[in-house]
Amino acid sequence: MQEHFAGRKALISGGLGFIGSNLAERLVALGAEVTLVDSLLPDYGGNVFNVAPFRERLHVNISDVRNMDRMRHLIEGQDYFFNLAGQTSHIDSMLNPVVDLEINCHAQLSMLEVCRECNPKIKIVFASTRQIYGRPQSLPVSESHPLDPVDVNGINKMAGEKYHLLYSKVYGLQTTALRLTNTIGPRMRIKDARQTFLGIWIRQVLQGEPIDVWGGKQLRDFTDVQDAVEAFLLAAIAPEMHGEFYNLGGNEVIDLIGLAKLLIEVHGSGEYCIREFPADRQPIDIGDYYGDFSKIQSQLGWIPKRSLRETLAATVSYYREHLRRYL
Amino acid sequence: MQEHFAGRKALISGGLGFIGSNLAERLVALGAEVTLVDSLLPDYGGNVFNVAPFRERLHVNISDVRNMDRMRHLIEGQDYFFNLAGQTSHIDSMLNPVVDLEINCHAQLSMLEVCRECNPKIKIVFASTRQIYGRPQSLPVSESHPLDPVDVNGINKMAGEKYHLLYSKVYGLQTTALRLTNTIGPRMRIKDARQTFLGIWIRQVLQGEPIDVWGGKQLRDFTDVQDAVEAFLLAAIAPEMHGEFYNLGGNEVIDLIGLAKLLIEVHGSGEYCIREFPADRQPIDIGDYYGDFSKIQSQLGWIPKRSLRETLAATVSYYREHLRRYL
Repeated sequence: MQEHFAGRKALISGGLGFIGSNLAERLVALGAEVTLVDSLLPDYGGNVFNVAPFRERLHVNISDVRNMDRMRHLIEGQDYFFNLAGQTSHIDSMLNPVVDLEINCHAQLSMLEVCRECNPKIKIVFASTRQIYGRPQSLPVSESHPLDPVDVNGINKMAGEKYHLLYSKVYGLQTTALRLTNTIGPRMRIKDARQTFLGIWIRQVLQGEPIDVWGGKQLRDFTDVQDAVEAFLLAAIAPEMHGEFYNLGGNEVIDLIGLAKLLIEVHGSGEYCIREFPADRQPIDIGDYYGDFSKIQSQLGWIPKRSLRETLAATVSYYREHLRRYL
Repeated sequence: MQEHFAGRKALISGGLGFIGSNLAERLVALGAEVTLVDSLLPDYGGNVFNVAPFRERLHVNISDVRNMDRMRHLIEGQDYFFNLAGQTSHIDSMLNPVVDLEINCHAQLSMLEVCRECNPKIKIVFASTRQIYGRPQSLPVSESHPLDPVDVNGINKMAGEKYHLLYSKVYGLQTTALRLTNTIGPRMRIKDARQTFLGIWIRQVLQGEPIDVWGGKQLRDFTDVQDAVEAFLLAAIAPEMHGEFYNLGGNEVIDLIGLAKLLIEVHGSGEYCIREFPADRQPIDIGDYYGDFSKIQSQLGWIPKRSLRETLAATVSYYREHLRRYL
């Protein structure tokens, strides 16, 4: 890894967020010259504390990916662009669909135009999502599964991904998309469920509240944030980047009740209570989901290394120490 | 038909355009109270001459679907909304991708929000396109063919269609999408190939210039504009509209050379010259395409009535008389 990143310039959009800051830490350790751009919008994942331990070793630029003049300046001269900025909340995308579109479509298309014009050799890894598949027709879900998203966020992220792949096919831009599933670990948002429902569970278990389990039988898979970071790095150094897209995933598939029990066990105490899945959210629920990640495994050699138990232990331990920074 | 439309209010976006104006004429004849909204942007399909014969029998509102304050006012109180406004040029979508996004995504999503808020019982028929399929994996293309558009226009129209279907599933809005293939007939744009390549052919043959055939072996299907109008009306009066989507098509499949010969024969004179398909357009070319329209046939009873020869004859005859209005 070091040979690819030492002394090279890397830009991370959404860089003060959960995955972005973990990626930044790793890139800094590899000797890269890292610039983060983040809007620090209150309902999003950005948190300056996320980069506190290595703040002096990178550049932080507070601005919004929707501002193209600033993005042009930031994209110029970069070797790598890890494009992680996005609106991630499914519910928010239904409440404010146009904001979701501005961030997940408009800004993405504009950034690709900027790359094409002023930095056509940049290597771009885009954070896509399993949300674009919608309700799975069969499990596990592979990359050939039809795309039929069930909410505005899924539709917009689908368009955002397709722009990235199109700009590779038509203009030869070097782009790869990673379709993330639930990513978990230290630095995730735990104030609410905007990033992942597990965030709020962590907060509840640490504050001695019962965990709210909506439904409970839904199957899910999880990626440890360090494993996700590894996937972003592997995608960026692949010898050829011509608009490929890969599922991420995890080693275990578990239902929500099983996950709640495991979290309580790892924490050492706690309880959960089952709540009925709200009727008005039913149409945008995806049911069971777990992904087939054999494509990235065989093509890029990515493999999830940590067990779910290890990830939960590292996460609980992080928030035990830093809880107040995330409330 | 009359019972469904007489005395009812219908809004047509893109109503001064090719299909919009033909639809307007039919709705006026059926006794509907018709309002057209059109931006009359110079590179688009709007042309006031299109409605000249029945101009006094409908309302025309010149404004842009991107202006939501005006759209709110226009959508309120309508029974039907034929949503035909769009950026249609594949090439323009690559040259000005953000404009394509503003019209084909942003405005669409905003209009659906307006419908949901101020007119949730309105019946909406959306003009989608076969462009969302991309390069066909098999022929004929049915609605279950994967969506993999090859240009920005296709990605944005795909998102625009999916918003319409999603708002039906989640909010119960009454929406249907028609995936149009090449639609041809009187009132189409013939200045250039922005709407359909056949427009420019018609102009060439009438002006005594050789028809430029790019490639020539590509298979295509065509829908007569009167048949397309019939499909919009059938979709609007279907007893249930809950986010269905249908291919349109035509009775004949023909390659471009065959079409050029037929056009020349119908016109009575002319010649064509084969040109090499431009290398820089290759990545956004879809190759052969023809659609399977059995779904709308069986569910809504739609069937294309005119032969390609009849359509070409009606079209040539119209432009013989009105050519200067379209130059």
